[in-house]
Amino acid sequence: MREVAVVGIGILKWGELWEKSFRNIFTEAALNSIDDAGVDHIDSLYVGCMTGGLFVGQEHVGAVMADYIGQKNIPAVRVESACASGAIAFRQAFMEVASGMSDIVMAGGVEKMTDVSGDGATYALATAADQEWEVFHGVTFPGLYAMMARAYMKKYKMTRKQLSAVPYKNHQNGAKNPYAQYSFPIKLEDVEKGVLIADPLHILDCSPITDGAAAAILTTVDIAKKLKKPIIKVTGSGLATDTIALAQRESLTWLKSTELAGKAALKMAGRKITDIDLIEVHDCFSIAEIIVTESLGLFKPGKGAKAAADGVTALDGKIPVNTSGGLKAKGHPVGATGIGQVVEIVKQLRGEAENGRQIKGNPKVGMAQNMGGSGASAAVHIMEVA
Amino acid sequence: MREVAVVGIGILKWGELWEKSFRNIFTEAALNSIDDAGVDHIDSLYVGCMTGGLFVGQEHVGAVMADYIGQKNIPAVRVESACASGAIAFRQAFMEVASGMSDIVMAGGVEKMTDVSGDGATYALATAADQEWEVFHGVTFPGLYAMMARAYMKKYKMTRKQLSAVPYKNHQNGAKNPYAQYSFPIKLEDVEKGVLIADPLHILDCSPITDGAAAAILTTVDIAKKLKKPIIKVTGSGLATDTIALAQRESLTWLKSTELAGKAALKMAGRKITDIDLIEVHDCFSIAEIIVTESLGLFKPGKGAKAAADGVTALDGKIPVNTSGGLKAKGHPVGATGIGQVVEIVKQLRGEAENGRQIKGNPKVGMAQNMGGSGASAAVHIMEVA
Repeated sequence: MREVAVVGIGILKWGELWEKSFRNIFTEAALNSIDDAGVDHIDSLYVGCMTGGLFVGQEHVGAVMADYIGQKNIPAVRVESACASGAIAFRQAFMEVASGMSDIVMAGGVEKMTDVSGDGATYALATAADQEWEVFHGVTFPGLYAMMARAYMKKYKMTRKQLSAVPYKNHQNGAKNPYAQYSFPIKLEDVEKGVLIADPLHILDCSPITDGAAAAILTTVDIAKKLKKPIIKVTGSGLATDTIALAQRESLTWLKSTELAGKAALKMAGRKITDIDLIEVHDCFSIAEIIVTESLGLFKPGKGAKAAADGVTALDGKIPVNTSGGLKAKGHPVGATGIGQVVEIVKQLRGEAENGRQIKGNPKVGMAQNMGGSGASAAVHIMEVA
Repeated sequence: MREVAVVGIGILKWGELWEKSFRNIFTEAALNSIDDAGVDHIDSLYVGCMTGGLFVGQEHVGAVMADYIGQKNIPAVRVESACASGAIAFRQAFMEVASGMSDIVMAGGVEKMTDVSGDGATYALATAADQEWEVFHGVTFPGLYAMMARAYMKKYKMTRKQLSAVPYKNHQNGAKNPYAQYSFPIKLEDVEKGVLIADPLHILDCSPITDGAAAAILTTVDIAKKLKKPIIKVTGSGLATDTIALAQRESLTWLKSTELAGKAALKMAGRKITDIDLIEVHDCFSIAEIIVTESLGLFKPGKGAKAAADGVTALDGKIPVNTSGGLKAKGHPVGATGIGQVVEIVKQLRGEAENGRQIKGNPKVGMAQNMGGSGASAAVHIMEVA
């Protein structure tokens, strides 16, 4: 397999983008990534998108976007694994470059969620859960993650304040990210004062509905050397699945797909979890960040909540988690989220994070963990300064 | 890149499968392919599916199917390029094996179209067209292909009888395929007697709404040699796109994405179109088969209709096209169609086609052409007896 590097990233400010269409927002992020890389074409395109059909009545998203970014006729494919679609677009692009099939590949992600028609965004998102054993019976994602939070609280005596530490920290970081949907801080006590969504989760425990897109340009390390950008190598890629239904898992307080994907990525990169300088994780709900950090091996089972509350994962902590603001503050345009994480890791490894968000000590190794459904899919990537 | 072979195929009888669910039909085809290959596991899964969200309220199809076929925890990804989703699942599996990332990969496809709720199957399918410039204005696929047929008739003086030759021939072949939705012959004159759908296309010019699934097992040629199945090598893979909207094409009577994908596949395989012994093509409407055979270079522009009428593409013709019965008679479960084509090519190259459908002369090189939308995506694969 050939060595692969990220040489361009592109994003736009995420939010409720009423004045921009589905193809507009993707095009903006994609052209930004082409400009950033300094390339004049791409050989192939992957687009992560969860459900263009239910959100905007548009499937066949690969071909649409290749056409609208001015790269008509190239191979273009849309990939979907619910909210992990972005990371999987990145993984497919990585494999296509590594295999020798193509030299310059764009991995993008997009979702236009705010102007959904039909049965609404909660139904559209629920198609990532088990239609027959969960959704049909009325369970949607806030309920599924609430069950995980309740089980974790019972097992490990997590306090409400510890759980609140996650969105509090992510809003602190998001306030320094000019591309975040909610670029403002919140108070710790705001979280438990917010409206209750699914006990014990309040509104600020939940990531928002977002319009957004992001893109990255991948190429070989050899080609990257000829471009003028810092070379960020992709050294590890892991993908794993678990039962689609939460009730069929071995444990409600562990994410096995994340554990397996993390191990696979670390093995490929020849790294240990302690080698990682910063991580973007999939905090679709506050409890998710806690269980993910444990499943990746950052903290022992039951210790993730305390670590967050103690500031271990803060911007100036021992291992910064979600310096971008995470899904909570940056926003969660589901198909784009995994690529949004890559954008943050690349910025941090280049030393280009804005507004005092740059972590200290010249980070060399970053990780991105993206997840679909209640954890039925998880993808982990490791990126390193060359 | 490593050499790749297909060592297992699986299918079930396609049709209106009221008694089987979305995951049932995929599981049946997938387990058949595992049995056929004689393997005890797969390392990774790709599932082609156009719109699980709109048809059955289930996205996240990769994880669902990995779980239900008993391969929980492996990497699993759903890919989508409208009706070309199946061939693209095959292409991704090919790249994953070729790259060295995985050794044994399943490429499957599935669609459950008959018990659609919401806005119905015609709307769900129309999300493969341009939502903003076609669907919003009321155009759906029968209308788009009718425009292509009308333009072709005007330009090349194609007769109604020549157009009817395509579904007539495909039903002759489908009558010999026990897995076909419509395994019975029709008379040539039945086509123009059928109800008019979108002038000049009558009902028998159109492929049906189908529930179906299919699967193939890909591995390295080295591993294939240890299994007991005949080795069918994948020697070429091409994928290309075109404008999503038909109106923005250079020509209504040419499919540029098919031309480019075909050339790319032939180049990779080191073959000429005249080396091909049989082809499965994407006859979603009768006019599509005619334009596809021309765009692949089998016949000169304007000569494809006459070739079909003259029997050149019949089972005993010079170059048999759609020996399976094609989308018209075999059925068109959109995400599964591309894999259904692979199943037929492999059967013919193994000499295992049922009921007198086996073509004569020990075919050595087969091609499968699968298409999305009105041709905004096209994927072409070449398979050869090792």
